[in-house]
Amino acid sequence: MTPQRITMITLAVADLEQSRTFYTALGWVEAEGGNDKIAFYKIAGQFFALYAKDALITDLGMPIHERSTGTITLATNYNSPKEVDCAFADAVAAGAIIITEPKEVFWGGYSGNFADPDGHLWEVAHNPFWALDDDGQLIGGT
Amino acid sequence: MTPQRITMITLAVADLEQSRTFYTALGWVEAEGGNDKIAFYKIAGQFFALYAKDALITDLGMPIHERSTGTITLATNYNSPKEVDCAFADAVAAGAIIITEPKEVFWGGYSGNFADPDGHLWEVAHNPFWALDDDGQLIGGT
Repeated sequence: MTPQRITMITLAVADLEQSRTFYTALGWVEAEGGNDKIAFYKIAGQFFALYAKDALITDLGMPIHERSTGTITLATNYNSPKEVDCAFADAVAAGAIIITEPKEVFWGGYSGNFADPDGHLWEVAHNPFWALDDDGQLIGGT
Repeated sequence: MTPQRITMITLAVADLEQSRTFYTALGWVEAEGGNDKIAFYKIAGQFFALYAKDALITDLGMPIHERSTGTITLATNYNSPKEVDCAFADAVAAGAIIITEPKEVFWGGYSGNFADPDGHLWEVAHNPFWALDDDGQLIGGT
């Protein structure tokens, strides 16, 4: 049985220095252990990593385009629509590509979407039905 | 400033029922709140979700192929190579596509890669330099 957990989220990136610059501009602080192929960021209970696409291709032993990977979106939730607007503006200022401007959405929340330099999709959202603790960790919902 | 956290990890899937069946076969238990477009799974401090690709396309207001999204890998770590072997075998039995068989890898750990029905890449790994708590949450490293 595969346990219901995720230890690390790794984004394959075309240009590691460009991506480091983007996430630094977002305010993220890199952890130790990185090099010219990988950058680690500690998040609650997990690592988030940026990994050079050519290195991942070597690890997997095949070109990534041979296995067209699925689309993943990563969401960060906030306590109010105003906080979503601020986060979205900060991301755009950091160089994010606008996908959808923050707005009220069909499921009862407030949400916008942007993409990082490699097209990785991030949602910034306020969900009035989900509670966050003081560290921003999800503590309940649905 | 964008906080250094991720609230939800969402995989776009071509066939939600096929994907539900795959993750159920892996041993994952669906949370409440899902429907014919989305399935939620509670993981520590986060939700993991499977979301119908056509619904995501509607949300984003564009075909996904217009914005070729980057490649993401999701990793679940284990306490030993033997546990990795078991998890890998379970995934293959559940219908996973083999990408790399588990083996000792260059960074000093033991790792294999498989893909789910949509090509989403999962790594199962033992990292002797990273510690997990009793719940499998990452508690240190690098």
